Amino acid sequence: MRAAVFRQGELVVDSVRDPVLAEGQVLVKTRSCGICGTDLHAARYPAEFTELARRTGGRWNFDPSRDVVFGHEYVAEVVANGPGTEGRFKPGQLVTSMPLTMTGTTVMGLGYNPDIPGAYGEYMPLAERMLLPVPAGMDPEHAALVEPMAVGLHAVNYARLLPEDVPLVVGCGPIGLAVIAALKLRGVGPIIASDYSPARRALAKAMGADIVVDPAQASPYAALEQAITPDGHDGSRYAALFGIGPQRRPSVLFECVGVPGVIQQMMEGAPAGARIVVVGVSMQTDSFEPFFGILKHTSLQFVLAYTAAEFAETLDHIAAGRMNVAPLITGRVGLEGVADAFRDLASPEKHAKVLIEPWR
Amino acid sequence: MRAAVFRQGELVVDSVRDPVLAEGQVLVKTRSCGICGTDLHAARYPAEFTELARRTGGRWNFDPSRDVVFGHEYVAEVVANGPGTEGRFKPGQLVTSMPLTMTGTTVMGLGYNPDIPGAYGEYMPLAERMLLPVPAGMDPEHAALVEPMAVGLHAVNYARLLPEDVPLVVGCGPIGLAVIAALKLRGVGPIIASDYSPARRALAKAMGADIVVDPAQASPYAALEQAITPDGHDGSRYAALFGIGPQRRPSVLFECVGVPGVIQQMMEGAPAGARIVVVGVSMQTDSFEPFFGILKHTSLQFVLAYTAAEFAETLDHIAAGRMNVAPLITGRVGLEGVADAFRDLASPEKHAKVLIEPWR
Repeated sequence: MRAAVFRQGELVVDSVRDPVLAEGQVLVKTRSCGICGTDLHAARYPAEFTELARRTGGRWNFDPSRDVVFGHEYVAEVVANGPGTEGRFKPGQLVTSMPLTMTGTTVMGLGYNPDIPGAYGEYMPLAERMLLPVPAGMDPEHAALVEPMAVGLHAVNYARLLPEDVPLVVGCGPIGLAVIAALKLRGVGPIIASDYSPARRALAKAMGADIVVDPAQASPYAALEQAITPDGHDGSRYAALFGIGPQRRPSVLFECVGVPGVIQQMMEGAPAGARIVVVGVSMQTDSFEPFFGILKHTSLQFVLAYTAAEFAETLDHIAAGRMNVAPLITGRVGLEGVADAFRDLASPEKHAKVLIEPWR
Repeated sequence: MRAAVFRQGELVVDSVRDPVLAEGQVLVKTRSCGICGTDLHAARYPAEFTELARRTGGRWNFDPSRDVVFGHEYVAEVVANGPGTEGRFKPGQLVTSMPLTMTGTTVMGLGYNPDIPGAYGEYMPLAERMLLPVPAGMDPEHAALVEPMAVGLHAVNYARLLPEDVPLVVGCGPIGLAVIAALKLRGVGPIIASDYSPARRALAKAMGADIVVDPAQASPYAALEQAITPDGHDGSRYAALFGIGPQRRPSVLFECVGVPGVIQQMMEGAPAGARIVVVGVSMQTDSFEPFFGILKHTSLQFVLAYTAAEFAETLDHIAAGRMNVAPLITGRVGLEGVADAFRDLASPEKHAKVLIEPWR
């Protein structure tokens, strides 16, 4: 089959071996696959990516010295049921799944695995028991957005929202936009969002942000302070400590940048008592000053991915129109366009989510 | 009056002005005052302490170019009621309070304030409305331990303990020991505690730790893994992710060292899903790798001090014998002994808490 292959640091289009189905697997044909920021990171820093996987005890077996077919945000069409399957899905059925496959009872990650092709190739061997059918009437390519949108839902669930919480989303790339959509779904507000890019701020508005801030022009933390402070409150630390005057609303901040320095900046800027949910996936060493957190009783909650239930719930939300993913899709490419798309995605102005269509 | 004065970087004994009582204040005579690790830090790094106070927007007005009388962990005796007081306490009554005083409705910190002497001097001007009487029958000097013990209770309250939580306390200085006492009071266990010092490990046992670890000999994180993992559980990430086999118990870790590098070490060592409560007061820039937290859904909760209710509750616990503070008191000095005590406290073997008795 044809695939965009990550080979010796470059993305090339080539023929690779067709998947061979193991026990319980279904052969699917990729219809659309999103390009994830983590794919960009792995392609740019393959050695660091491998070393961090080793040090954190990760079981993913990314190996940049071998060919790897990326792709873990997909919608696909069932082609054939393999040995030991129950035949739950007929050929032609559109499906999605978490980026995992199974052989028997052994679970394996998909998307960075040199032994199993991800969705940057024409075909994949998925686990029948993990497949979710795309509901009838849903725009098929929207199902490729379930994966990143589920990341936002999971992060918002971990924030343990109260109706009075005021959220601030720092960074409006695909993950920040997914967080905004999940916040909108949960009914909290005003939703404040911050990004240097005009295009991203426009997308934040489209996804449900009530207030968007260009941090080059104004402080998002000042906007948050204003939103949580009722009229007549003097805003001082003693007022907060002793509950003098009307109470301020609690705040929850979402780190959706994933670059060193942002966590410290948010700890400095956050109101007292804030929860900071770290959704951005930074793979570098970072520095921070604990004393800012100490003085303000800050909490930092790190999150990753989603549960199986959250993944399925996200599919339902998108299918029912409760999460609008259409504005996120800013481009579609065939396999030959993948390398250029990786370059284009370096600029936030041009794209949010680019979908790969390997069948083109 | 006489006081141990922090002057130009040195601790000297000298005469300073007697406090003049403002509206609502009571003159008290210090009976005992604990030496806090923050006092040691302020004396050793006065410029950094001042700069960090400025950058964090703190209202404490520590100024190492002026004379400062430290001391914020005290028990004292009422001497005279000032103007506008209600006369709630008769002369001779033993009292303690949070390290704050008030003039009218203005609250001010005590202990690092060049304008108001702390309890390293013979007398203090305390706020009548903040005073708590020492219950009859309580060993008076135990009331000087309320302040650090309340820090432990507050940290444990922020951990939102479940009965099945397994706690690990990293660092068994006075704050770690206070956390252990509060954990014991809340009935969770086994309580695991870690410190390089044999003396501190013995104190940890005395305060209620069930398992003590010398990190030079064995990993406290391995001890925690063993305590949370039921027999027959394979301990792998996939087992945790999919809930295969018996469930592991949740874990909560307390950072009670306050030195750069410890938070990262704990993020690396903590089990998946752990809450880390940062109780140690580090005033330096620290470095960490967010990815360890991200992969494990770690939460970092920074805490400081206590509420007024927690302070009063701690006094009750100590008075009733539910928190045993006697083992913590390892020395008593007069004002002339303060400078030596600061030097001695650099070694964990010699002391836990040294009480100053300015009346000697």
